Amino acid sequence: MTVVELGDNLDSCAKVPNLKAVEFSKDLRFGLQNGKRFGPITAAYKTFGKLNKARDNAVLVFPTLTATQQAASEKSNGTVFPGWWQEIVGEGKPIDTRKFFVVCADHFGGCYGSTGPSSTNPDTGKPFGLNFPGFFIKDMANVTMEFLRQIGITKLRAVVGASIGGLLSLELAALDNAFAEKAIVVGASHRVSATYLALNYIAREAIMLDPAWNSGNYYGAEFPERGLSIARQIGHVSYLNQLILERKFGRQPVNGNFKQHVSLGLQYQVESYLDYQGKKFCKRFDPNSYIYLSKAIDTFDLEKEFGSIENAFSGSPTEFSFITISSDNLFLPSDTKELHSKLAECGVRSAYNGINSPKGHDGLFLEHEKIAPIIRKALKE
Amino acid sequence: MTVVELGDNLDSCAKVPNLKAVEFSKDLRFGLQNGKRFGPITAAYKTFGKLNKARDNAVLVFPTLTATQQAASEKSNGTVFPGWWQEIVGEGKPIDTRKFFVVCADHFGGCYGSTGPSSTNPDTGKPFGLNFPGFFIKDMANVTMEFLRQIGITKLRAVVGASIGGLLSLELAALDNAFAEKAIVVGASHRVSATYLALNYIAREAIMLDPAWNSGNYYGAEFPERGLSIARQIGHVSYLNQLILERKFGRQPVNGNFKQHVSLGLQYQVESYLDYQGKKFCKRFDPNSYIYLSKAIDTFDLEKEFGSIENAFSGSPTEFSFITISSDNLFLPSDTKELHSKLAECGVRSAYNGINSPKGHDGLFLEHEKIAPIIRKALKE
Repeated sequence: MTVVELGDNLDSCAKVPNLKAVEFSKDLRFGLQNGKRFGPITAAYKTFGKLNKARDNAVLVFPTLTATQQAASEKSNGTVFPGWWQEIVGEGKPIDTRKFFVVCADHFGGCYGSTGPSSTNPDTGKPFGLNFPGFFIKDMANVTMEFLRQIGITKLRAVVGASIGGLLSLELAALDNAFAEKAIVVGASHRVSATYLALNYIAREAIMLDPAWNSGNYYGAEFPERGLSIARQIGHVSYLNQLILERKFGRQPVNGNFKQHVSLGLQYQVESYLDYQGKKFCKRFDPNSYIYLSKAIDTFDLEKEFGSIENAFSGSPTEFSFITISSDNLFLPSDTKELHSKLAECGVRSAYNGINSPKGHDGLFLEHEKIAPIIRKALKE
Repeated sequence: MTVVELGDNLDSCAKVPNLKAVEFSKDLRFGLQNGKRFGPITAAYKTFGKLNKARDNAVLVFPTLTATQQAASEKSNGTVFPGWWQEIVGEGKPIDTRKFFVVCADHFGGCYGSTGPSSTNPDTGKPFGLNFPGFFIKDMANVTMEFLRQIGITKLRAVVGASIGGLLSLELAALDNAFAEKAIVVGASHRVSATYLALNYIAREAIMLDPAWNSGNYYGAEFPERGLSIARQIGHVSYLNQLILERKFGRQPVNGNFKQHVSLGLQYQVESYLDYQGKKFCKRFDPNSYIYLSKAIDTFDLEKEFGSIENAFSGSPTEFSFITISSDNLFLPSDTKELHSKLAECGVRSAYNGINSPKGHDGLFLEHEKIAPIIRKALKE
């Protein structure tokens, strides 16, 4: 099943080989949108392919909410590490690592090596937890640009991202018109839907309800597995194509036990699947990172931030490509289309590609056969 | 907004005037499907209209999962009590209380006066909590038929129900072919979808995660409001037409504060709405009842119970009418259609009415203008 493969790819990526890291803002010169200075900041990243001499073939791929730096698949010490976007990034793939120098870094606020709530607070010697500063998509994009400068990249052939990665791509392009020649934005727009706000809210409430969460102070103690599991499970039911759930599990009981009984334990395979997905997710993701990153998504609103889409992008030489999934209820295709139209109105080059698919927000991954040629074309032009 | 009106109707019904109650099985002669004898059992009910002399105009309306006995609206002591199905049940309505004697009883396992987990366990003098026996839709239907006999009704002109009420109507008709002349089943089929299993599972997990739930022993102590709220909120996002959520709330911040900030409190109106809905629900519903009733829904499967649809209904004189909402993802119209076809195949009279609507399972209420004439016709024929 495609969906499970996706989950499997993501989860098996939690151990990322050949990770690099760069530390900056030791002097706290990095300013956050909340007005405070913050540092040091570590960016943990991977690169695929080679930077050319002209240093003009770099492509930044932003991860999705919980994806690691392992965008492409990789063989290391005899082990194959699948990439979460391996149909799009890799040798001969649309983002061709024989041609492009692909950079993929863990989010600021993430938990795969970059500075986030689980990092040690230098002031206390203990993990930040909720003392980590609140941040916005703007902060995450600024941190990313600073990180790229630190590794010698001041210009991108393209910035590419799906979902929150798409928000970050848009934000980066808005903050510095000259940074990326192209921006490829998949399943994202200038604002999130009310549905996504609602689901993020419920997911956070579930995490914070777990007594083990303990106001964010669980590091070195019991992990708030039940709360984070529920958060993940809510995502699974909403993102997934429900027909797939139906076909795959239906009403099959666990252990083939068809005898009617009532138990608060796992009775049906669909419950067992959700339980498994929840627990697997807990092995690789930090609940506080989930809270902070979901908040960054919620607060993203380019019109509020820049006053208008025109203010954000007018005069930009960046070439935009948007890809949407018709049934996406987290980022509405109508919003993306509106953004595309506004860009075109103010003379910015923009292409809109709507994919007709019933697979919802997950279509970002599941429809890669339809997405691949669009990205290939966008990068060639 | 229709949706909020629905919620308001349901919630304002928590105080039900002119409630009647009947107690039976004091001698524990009532047997549950688990093999154990149980009693005493109280059924708390309301009636609308008058039973005729021939005692042949009774219509049983099963409540939905969390609805009270207040199916029709009513004026009592100068106060108007809205009915949760007032567009369908009432004077001049499709289930016309000038013509029919309408009975609506709280579910066995419920919390509006019928015996349930919050009732006093006669063996201990304390609320049952999780010591309440696990039960099935079959038990609920059997209790209902016994209750009807207790109030002198041994035959129904019709049994009518939506959602879990539809399951109960089907079960009653299968258990006793002669009990109901007609069965009108709205948004239900002989089995629940994998999606409904999944959502029920997550909702229960949220309730049980709340430390105040305390393994079901919270009566007289702190109420597990946060867990039950999350359970309710999951329902709200999944049942509701997400477009309505979008149009009603979008990204509007609370208090009109558009300044970008990050807070774990309520920042957006959609969050505030969910918080309000969750808390309001807590004022009228018992978390343990939610757990038990959702389990009864999960385990419902007429084919497993009777061996086949033919075994369950063959030779039945009951006349079935099914109404489905095309976008219902909790009970799939395709399942209902299959049930209808199987009934027709074994010579049982059955009519299938599919309503084309994007409103999902909530369409059961929201599409009452389309549902009303179908029920009116089914009862007239």
